[in-house]
Amino acid sequence: MSTDLMPNRYRPGESDLPEREAALIARRDAVLGASYRLQYRRPVHFVRGEGMWLYDPDGRAYLDFYNNVPSLGHCHPEVNAAMAKQAARISANTRYLEPRLVDYAERLVGTFPEELDRVVFTCTGSESNDLALRIARFASGGEGVIVSSYAYHGTSGAVAAVSPNLGDAVKLSPFVRMVSLPGPAGIPESQAGDFFEAQIRSAILDLNRRGMGVAALLIDSIFSSDGVWVDPPGFIAGGVAAVREAGGLVIADEVQPGFGRTGTHMWGFERHGIVPDLVTLGKPMGNGFPIGAVVGRQAPMERFGATARYSNTFAGNTVGIATADAVLTILERDQIRQNALAMGQRLRAGLEEMAMKHREVRAIRNAGLFFGVDIGSEDTSAAARRAMALDIVNAMRDDGVLVSTTGANEDALKVRPPLVCGAEHVDLFIAAAERAITTVAG
Amino acid sequence: MSTDLMPNRYRPGESDLPEREAALIARRDAVLGASYRLQYRRPVHFVRGEGMWLYDPDGRAYLDFYNNVPSLGHCHPEVNAAMAKQAARISANTRYLEPRLVDYAERLVGTFPEELDRVVFTCTGSESNDLALRIARFASGGEGVIVSSYAYHGTSGAVAAVSPNLGDAVKLSPFVRMVSLPGPAGIPESQAGDFFEAQIRSAILDLNRRGMGVAALLIDSIFSSDGVWVDPPGFIAGGVAAVREAGGLVIADEVQPGFGRTGTHMWGFERHGIVPDLVTLGKPMGNGFPIGAVVGRQAPMERFGATARYSNTFAGNTVGIATADAVLTILERDQIRQNALAMGQRLRAGLEEMAMKHREVRAIRNAGLFFGVDIGSEDTSAAARRAMALDIVNAMRDDGVLVSTTGANEDALKVRPPLVCGAEHVDLFIAAAERAITTVAG
Repeated sequence: MSTDLMPNRYRPGESDLPEREAALIARRDAVLGASYRLQYRRPVHFVRGEGMWLYDPDGRAYLDFYNNVPSLGHCHPEVNAAMAKQAARISANTRYLEPRLVDYAERLVGTFPEELDRVVFTCTGSESNDLALRIARFASGGEGVIVSSYAYHGTSGAVAAVSPNLGDAVKLSPFVRMVSLPGPAGIPESQAGDFFEAQIRSAILDLNRRGMGVAALLIDSIFSSDGVWVDPPGFIAGGVAAVREAGGLVIADEVQPGFGRTGTHMWGFERHGIVPDLVTLGKPMGNGFPIGAVVGRQAPMERFGATARYSNTFAGNTVGIATADAVLTILERDQIRQNALAMGQRLRAGLEEMAMKHREVRAIRNAGLFFGVDIGSEDTSAAARRAMALDIVNAMRDDGVLVSTTGANEDALKVRPPLVCGAEHVDLFIAAAERAITTVAG
Repeated sequence: MSTDLMPNRYRPGESDLPEREAALIARRDAVLGASYRLQYRRPVHFVRGEGMWLYDPDGRAYLDFYNNVPSLGHCHPEVNAAMAKQAARISANTRYLEPRLVDYAERLVGTFPEELDRVVFTCTGSESNDLALRIARFASGGEGVIVSSYAYHGTSGAVAAVSPNLGDAVKLSPFVRMVSLPGPAGIPESQAGDFFEAQIRSAILDLNRRGMGVAALLIDSIFSSDGVWVDPPGFIAGGVAAVREAGGLVIADEVQPGFGRTGTHMWGFERHGIVPDLVTLGKPMGNGFPIGAVVGRQAPMERFGATARYSNTFAGNTVGIATADAVLTILERDQIRQNALAMGQRLRAGLEEMAMKHREVRAIRNAGLFFGVDIGSEDTSAAARRAMALDIVNAMRDDGVLVSTTGANEDALKVRPPLVCGAEHVDLFIAAAERAITTVAG
């Protein structure tokens, strides 16, 4: 890939920064080193968070339309109270009996189709995907993994090796095969399912010819890092069936779409009318507390668990469980998913209106409150479109609104506000986006 | 291996349990499944923790001589206050500027030899070891990893594949080589260094003959899962030098020995007078909050970071950092390491006295407050020794004291209390151990 893998970042010398910030960045670079990247040409620094808002040291408010971890809003007082209360009582691990662990586990699997009735806890989405791959390889006997062309599934060695989005510097596993998505390939929706299935069948054929077998299809049902390709619902079903036929497991990576973000469903795979074998959870599960999980069908989960020991020190500890339990309670009580659906519709309507006025808004895709908004008109170069998207992201940041970019060409705005987003926030966002496009497109 | 990989666990039907517990275990098994194991023949359930003590629902107190995550004691009020205060203010990720992240990073690397001046945060010890292996492979260009015979380094796919302790059910990587330790091989201390180095050189030779190259020697400096083999200090130095000569990196897994547990030093590798290339942290870093890190030399860290993106959503977030910062403050202010040294000496003296009275105490090994106590006299079978260790662990549990087993034969008591352990706790522990040995050995 020739594109910059993280275009929305600070590059030393690119912007004039206040002395205070420049000095902090120098210290940061000296101790944290090159793995760490700051977002935006002029990095942001927040000292307080509340609901949809983040505040910098000068008291300036930023509207957060980017962070998908604090789905219930920044610093949710009830979630924090649940965490603090449990931490004061006991932080016990899963090798001790703990009713609350069992209660939450039952509650969590209760939000899934009944075939998915087992759960193992982890601390991060990466750990969830890593464990799911271990289970799939164990249960299938195969090694091959099929992912989408620009998939990103996490940071562990095994998961990074099936994450082409990380670019040339991170070696891909010899056992991974990438499949193109119908949307970015320009396939009409009526043929999307056939196209996807044909890609999958071809990957299976190749894996089998090399004696690798098929362990898993690992997909994020909204294909977020590919640029948010969500439609038509159901287009993945034929590919899913083909993987099962070949003896592989289907892993739905719900780290991003899960917990109601798609609005219509609690879990993104439900939009497609399929039931996976394993489902991986992370980001919003604890509204910021490090907790994740693999939820799955009994057969593969038991086959793995009965022989291969899996013990994760922090995962499932009572503090994480109490926090995640509070998150689930609020998610249901406050009808957060329903709000994501309504606000997603309002945001889409606003963006569509904008697209009629600005040809630089090339396409809009969303499921609930996860949007990909393609920037740059058809007749401009990929580089020009990418540059325009980046300019818009930075103009919005200067205007006090946080978003970033995604997609193979990184020319789509990635918009995924906390799910507690209200109509007033949507309207503020649309106004800011319109200002930015007008300024940047001139 | 023919031994049970986790002998200290509950087996359904083995014990008569109260109805309340039996019902909870049935529900637990139905939803969490076989990956989860409960400790002890009669599992324990705790509803409150404070310092060295855990309390069950009936108010019975258990003295904790096993949990090495809450090094500062259970439910430390200052640590919890720091966590709650930061959570109420902001939980920001590392892509935003955050002075506290930089402050803590500088403070943490300041506790290491000056060559180790870079840090990347993770959420768990497994993530730390997984990342360290990625960095080592990237920086060395090699693939081979050398570990001890019964090493355990974590749960991710890549790390489990270099953890022979997980047993036959978990496939080892074709790139891993195991080396015997001088202690369990019966080598006299005067030849320990030569023996270890010869083992390492032989592993290097084999890896190179197969064209795999050497990425890393990955060792826990107290070899905890091998049975706690700590002496003589310095015995690993020749092996470490051999790995460097072969172009490999030396990774010290400090998840268990780190943060002062060895008493004499903040970091276990310092006991051996070596400076590793990478150091991995976990368990006690946040006294229970999920946080870990890789600390390392500039060259490999920068080589990896500058090209391979590493972004861990939760790791380094301000809540974890504030919590870990409070832990480090208390560790230094309350001279926790010095206490570990003093209490380790007191515990050792008590155990040595016991060994003079009971030939079933075969050997005692420790560094600070991490002990391996071999159970069963020389003239009994491995199976009998293992059974006796397990009986003692369960007798102590029934007597209100928590420990478990370790070692290739699982016949060593694994004793690693929170580091805030006082003289009165040591004395209570010794009395309980003596009661258990007397009862079990008859």
